[in-house]
Parts: sequence; C-alpha cells; structure tokens
Amino acid sequence: MLRLLLLLLSLTDQRAILTEFSDFLAIPNLASDAPNIARNAAAIQAMFEKRGVKTKLLTLDNAPPIVIVDVPSRGATRTIAFYAHYDGQPVDPKQWQTPPWRPVMRDAAGNDVDWRNATTLDPEWRLYARSSGDDKAPIIAMAAALDALRKSGHAPNVNLRFVFEGEEEAGSPHLGDYLAKYPDVLRPDAWILCDGPVQQSRRMQLVFGARGVVDAELTVYGPAKGLHDGHYGNWVPNPIIRLTHLIDSMRDETGRILIAHFYDEVKPSSAAEHDAIAKMPPVESDLKREFGIASTESENLNQSLLLPALNVRGIQSGHIGAQASNTIQTEATASLDFRVVPAETPESIKKLVEQHIESQGYTIIRTTPDAATRLAHPKIAKLTWGAGYPPARTSLDLPLSQQIAALMTTAGHPPVRVPTLGGSIPMYLFQQPSNTPVLILPIANHDDNQHAANENIRLQNLWDGIDVYVALFEGLN
Amino acid sequence: MLRLLLLLLSLTDQRAILTEFSDFLAIPNLASDAPNIARNAAAIQAMFEKRGVKTKLLTLDNAPPIVIVDVPSRGATRTIAFYAHYDGQPVDPKQWQTPPWRPVMRDAAGNDVDWRNATTLDPEWRLYARSSGDDKAPIIAMAAALDALRKSGHAPNVNLRFVFEGEEEAGSPHLGDYLAKYPDVLRPDAWILCDGPVQQSRRMQLVFGARGVVDAELTVYGPAKGLHDGHYGNWVPNPIIRLTHLIDSMRDETGRILIAHFYDEVKPSSAAEHDAIAKMPPVESDLKREFGIASTESENLNQSLLLPALNVRGIQSGHIGAQASNTIQTEATASLDFRVVPAETPESIKKLVEQHIESQGYTIIRTTPDAATRLAHPKIAKLTWGAGYPPARTSLDLPLSQQIAALMTTAGHPPVRVPTLGGSIPMYLFQQPSNTPVLILPIANHDDNQHAANENIRLQNLWDGIDVYVALFEGLN
Repeated sequence: MLRLLLLLLSLTDQRAILTEFSDFLAIPNLASDAPNIARNAAAIQAMFEKRGVKTKLLTLDNAPPIVIVDVPSRGATRTIAFYAHYDGQPVDPKQWQTPPWRPVMRDAAGNDVDWRNATTLDPEWRLYARSSGDDKAPIIAMAAALDALRKSGHAPNVNLRFVFEGEEEAGSPHLGDYLAKYPDVLRPDAWILCDGPVQQSRRMQLVFGARGVVDAELTVYGPAKGLHDGHYGNWVPNPIIRLTHLIDSMRDETGRILIAHFYDEVKPSSAAEHDAIAKMPPVESDLKREFGIASTESENLNQSLLLPALNVRGIQSGHIGAQASNTIQTEATASLDFRVVPAETPESIKKLVEQHIESQGYTIIRTTPDAATRLAHPKIAKLTWGAGYPPARTSLDLPLSQQIAALMTTAGHPPVRVPTLGGSIPMYLFQQPSNTPVLILPIANHDDNQHAANENIRLQNLWDGIDVYVALFEGLN
Repeated sequence: MLRLLLLLLSLTDQRAILTEFSDFLAIPNLASDAPNIARNAAAIQAMFEKRGVKTKLLTLDNAPPIVIVDVPSRGATRTIAFYAHYDGQPVDPKQWQTPPWRPVMRDAAGNDVDWRNATTLDPEWRLYARSSGDDKAPIIAMAAALDALRKSGHAPNVNLRFVFEGEEEAGSPHLGDYLAKYPDVLRPDAWILCDGPVQQSRRMQLVFGARGVVDAELTVYGPAKGLHDGHYGNWVPNPIIRLTHLIDSMRDETGRILIAHFYDEVKPSSAAEHDAIAKMPPVESDLKREFGIASTESENLNQSLLLPALNVRGIQSGHIGAQASNTIQTEATASLDFRVVPAETPESIKKLVEQHIESQGYTIIRTTPDAATRLAHPKIAKLTWGAGYPPARTSLDLPLSQQIAALMTTAGHPPVRVPTLGGSIPMYLFQQPSNTPVLILPIANHDDNQHAANENIRLQNLWDGIDVYVALFEGLN
C-alpha cells in the first residue's frame, strides 16, 4: 500500500495538495475570531463539495460551527466518524519567524524553499503555519485520501463521516451540547480522533484511552496573623508543616497513592494492554537524559500511566530567598490534580480524598474560615474542586481495534498501540452514552511545535497520514 | 520603694522628664542618617554631662558612635553595664497619625492632650514618637533614675556604665568590632540589656537567654524543564513531593526534630529554669484565642522555647489558584530556620542537618546543578546556609540573677523570670569571651507598636522603668 500510494501521489498531486493546504492555512483560525472561523468552515465545505461530497454545518448560538462531511457507502450499515478540529492555539507573532498565517516551506536546515517551482519535494521539508500540525493536517489529508481512493478505483465499505470542530483549543466548551443536540449526526458507530502527534520515534501510534482528571486546591491554616517564628515556633502550628504532612499522607515518592480504597475501583489491565505496553519502544533511557533526571518514581513510564496519579502542581506559602522572613505563615496552599482511570470518576475519588483528609484530623471547609470556625476545629483544610471529567478506555480486543491496527500495518505503518494517554482529553464525551468505541490516530510529527511558535508539519507525516486514511477508508468494514 | 519613688517623682519632676524626653525624641534617628545620629549622640552626652557625669564616644569608621556614660562608685571593684540603643526603625510617615519625630501625648482614647499644662499626668497617657518605646525610653529613664537616686541620698555600690548603641535596628553590624576594639570599656562584669517590651500582662520580665539561629535554603529538583503531569506524572520525579517528604523526614507536627543526634548537645534545663517557667503567667488560652488557633504543636509555650526548633518559613514551587497548570515543576524550594539552644551552635547543627539530608539519599550541592550533575545523582538537594549565630543563656542561679530579681520584687515589680527568649538576639556577643552574665530587662509596654507606625510609650511604663533602675543602681553590689 505504501508503494502504491507513492506511485499515486505524483509531484503534481503533491503540489496540488500543498497549494490547497497553504490556502487553507492562510485563514486565521482562533476560536474567538468568529468571522475567520466562518471563513474556515466555508473553506472546508468548499474543499469537500468540489469533490462531490455533501457537507453541512451544525450550529449552536455563540459557538463555532461543526462542519460535517458525509461520504455514504451503498449498502453500508455502519458509520465511522473521523474527527479533527480546524481552530488553532492563540499566537504571539513576535515569537514567530514568519507570520503564523502566512505558510512558508523550509528545509531541514531551516532555509526557505521555493516548493512551488521545485522539481522534487523533499519529504523532510516542513510547512510552517499555525495549525499546520494541530489540527488542519488531518483535514487536508482526508480530502487528499478521498481523491487517492477514487483514483485507485476502490470504494469504502462503511459510511464515512468527517466531523470538524472549531473550538477545541478553547477547551471544547460546546462539544457536550453539540453531541446532545445532534445525536443523529454525532452518534456514529465508532470515532477515530485525528489529533495530536505520532510517537517521538516517528512511528505512528494508535491510542485507546485517556485518563480522566480533576483538580483541587487545598489550603491549611496557621495563626490568623503572621507570627515571629522564634517567639512562637514549636507551639503555634506551622501551616507549611501541616500541609507537607498532609500531602505526604496522601502519596509516597514512588507515585503510590496512600488514600484508603483509592485503587479499589481500578480495573485490572487486560492481557492485550500488557502486551501492547511490552511492545512499545522503550523510551525511558532517552527521556531520562533529555529531562536531566537520574532516577524516576517508577520503573516503566507507560505501565505507570495505567494507574491513577496524584500530582502536586504547585505549593505556596510565605517567601523564599531574600524575601524570606522569620514568620509562621497564616496558611499554606497546594494545587493538586488527580488523574483517574476506569472505572474511577471524579465523583468517586473526591469522596475518598475527603474521607482521607478527615481521617488526618481535619475539618473540611469550602470558604476561608472566620474566627469562630478557626477556634472550633483543631485542624482545618479548605478544599475546593475543579470541574474535571471521567476517563475513557476502548478495548484493544475489539474487532474494530484489531482491524485498524492491521490495516495500518498492511499499509506499512504498524502502529505503536497505546492503551491510554497519561494526559486527559474528553474522550468520554464521544464514548457516551452507549460506550461507543473511540480511538485516537494522530498523524503530525511529534516535533511540530504544536501550541507554540513556528508550528509546522513535516511533509512525510502528511503523506503518511494520507496513506493511512486511504487504507482505513478502503479497508474498514 | 514604689511608694517612695512616687513621692519623689513630683508633677514637676514628671514634666521635666517628659520635656527632656520630647526634645530627645524630636531628633530623627535612623542609623543610616549620620548627621542626625551625631546629634542624638551629642544630645545623650549633654543629657548626662549636665548631671555631672562623664561621657565619651567610642568610634569606628563608618559606624554610628557608641556613647559611654560612666558613673563610678568609690571603692567599688565591679562594673555593671546597662545597654540601650538610640537609633530607631525606619518609618513610613504615611502610616503615622502625626509625624514620627514630632512627639505627641495622647490619652487612652487616642485624643491629643496638652500635658505641659495639665494639673495631673494620667499614667495611662502615651507619648507617641519613633523610639519612644524602642529604645530611647531606657536612656531617659536612666538619666531620671540618677536624679532620683541623688535626691534619695543613696549612692551605688558598683560602678555603673551606660552603653548606648546607634545601629541596633540596622542589625548591629559593628557591635562585634566595637567589643573587640574597646575591651577595657566593653567588658564589664555583667550586662543588663534594656531593650524590648515587658510581658503582655504588663508585668516586668527578666530574661536570661536567647536562642541562636541559622537559616537555610533547600531546593530539590525535578526535570530540567517543566513537563505535562498527565503524560509524565508517576514516572518523572515531582520535586514538590520530594521536598515535602524531605521536610517531613526532618520534623513532625509536634515540633519534634527527627534529625539524628539533634538533641544530643542540648543541655538539660535547670531546676531554677523549670521553676521559673512554672511560675510564668499562663498565656496559652489567651494567645490561642488571639491567634485563632484551636490546637497547638506542643503543650506549654515557654517550655517549648527551651528546645531547638525547625521552622519552615516559606515554600514555593509552581503556581496555585488560577495560575496553576498541569506541570511537573523543575524544582521546589523551602526556606528554613533553625533555632538552637546551649550548647548547640550553628556549626554543630549544620553538620547534623547535612548528614540527615544525605541519609535520605540526597547529594548536597551548593550551586544550581548543570546537566552532568543532574544525571550523576539520583537525588540532588541544593543547600545554602545563612550566617547565623549561637545561643546564649545566663544561669538563673547566679547571685547576680537572684539579686536583680529580689531588688525588682522589693521595688514592687516582681519580675516574670524568662529562661530564654524564643527569638534570637546576639546576646552571645556580650557574653563572650569569658561567659559574662547577660540579662535583659525591658521597660516598654508590650503594645508600644515597636518597629511599626505610631510607636508610643505608656507613661506608667516610663515611671516603672525609672523605679526599677533606681532600685538597681542603689541595691546592686
């Protein structure tokens, strides 16, 4: 399949794809920029309509539209949806070598190249522009894959539906509402989310889950006013000491969470997940060198991501350095996040965390304590929870999971199978309410500067993406 | 003696004292303001010279002079030095009700009063000015006590020497040099330091020691760059977790220091110290209410000050609140101070602290680690020490200690005997090199706003101070 496609994608084809892509990338695409968002949506519709495919816009008040592209297949009963987003991260133009919405091709050494007149296109060249990697590349790749598929004379065996969101980088604030309002369109038989980067080894990856997340802020209290730590230290409670002991009661230095029953709900990993992790390229040595760390909290990075995590993101009380003073502080605060895995939910772990804090002698409050509250309880912890959302996991054993991996392999792109992201994305929204299979299949290079200045797509990643989409469009059934 | 003095200090006497004091307080007295510091020193010399007492200035380059007032006693072989300081804390005039160096008398309700024409002077009135309490009150009180002593017809049995420093509020940077340069003048047989406030109960106190202090800054490290805590949490070391565990390994929530051998050098308290603490007015209930705390780290405040302490003054890593992000931070830092008691010294405990940190698996470094250092050691702690100084303690059992307490009691001012301050002042400088007895005898009201705006002296405290000085000048032998 790889060889076939390289034949199919002639220099003329590649130039045509890049010309169309450049025009698309030239449209500014901040989710908050409604007129340009509308231009992007119209451009996508035009891109697919000119290929004879029907499109429509889903709309909600004050939200960027979702563009729907439908490629029905005669006699097919199943619909597979491919998701990408056409909005991009905010930009700081001062940090960009060239303006973010003026696409420029550069070679591996960083020199501008005149790709429109070049006689060959080096696959190591990169096209620089906001969203070139994240996440307009999958959109143009799907369009090109449709072209290639037609040239090959094959037809899909399933209904294909492309779903393009316009506010992912703004946190997808209306995604839940869209899914609820348009169940007929947005409840396919499976989702393939085309977002994010491939492996750092440049191998493609197929991701089957994401951890859920909920953050919390925890404040414990010392005296109502700062006190001289010589005069009162050893007697007046030091809130920093209370906080360090409370944190340490919750988590050890190996990442193990010490809160009672925290692992009770965690589903054991499947044999397929263990197998997938065993087959993942080992990254630990390289990462340790890159991160400048000589020891780690646990042995195997990917194994550890199958488990829940308690991260302390920030801690603050008093001052350090020249501003430090001999003071018992009035309070100490830590910002935490919990990563949760099936079948945990934010709600289920909140209860365990609160029970734990109470078991350490604390009374939990939600607002800053007044004098009476301070005097009523030996130990007070103000705990506030962020919104959060649950984890999602698709089984590696599903026929669809196995088929996608097999099609990619046949196409020359055997995927690294990743049972779950350590990070959190709202996969659960796509999965609900009927446990729809959701997989993530990224095509962008890992070093595409996504979310940063000088974002880019490496051409080989674009060609590989087209390659894989052709294989899936043709082979899924 | 109290009654005697009240008879001696007539309204005329009181007016004369306040007039002289007001003129003295009107001279600005920041240690850095050389011309006005010189005016203060000259005013003190004039104050005592006009009473027929010899004075002299000790000088060092670029340092405020020390004013020496000598009151020799025929046939006496021992010299007792009374110390005070004539410089004051910096001021923020905007926070003052009236300018800091324009003395104003106010009644207990805060209304200005015309004390120069009043027919009685309410002892609850207060004179407001910078240094009215801290620490010019003892200077005028010593001068007035000399007057009163002469009127009473008694003469001292010891040589009295008054020593007035001009840069205490700037941290006494030259005190050690002065003591070394003028041993003949500044090595008396005993020191009585007249600084600080009386007890919050308004009872006078006699303080026999101060804890030493040394501060430290401790930084532990995570990855060389901030990392996504979803992707890498549970595997990349979280520096906040390392720091909280390291802190907790050093100190529990009851103030107990867990560092091996930390208490080996601590001298057991004497029976007299235990007795003194048992007789101190209980302050715990009031302080708990005032400080808004329902529990404490230990039972008895003053008992706990006999022991060394580890205070965490500040802790910082990452962000809290709206600035918090899902990041494994690169480092976490805590600012600590250790309060030490005889016979510990900063040097002796530094060794124990470093041994402890190493026992927790850390390699101690002194500067920010480079990439090679990071990769060479599983755990790295950057530890930097402040200067610090040792503790000092004068035995409550010394004849001098007992005599001073007895004279104060006879004069109607039985002192609260305080074995040691919890805080640190460089008493050791006065004590060295031959273990000279050093006691602290404050006269200012505890609520004199020392170091703050609207500093004041309550008149009764001034009269009591004169009272007690007369008793000591007359009775010490």
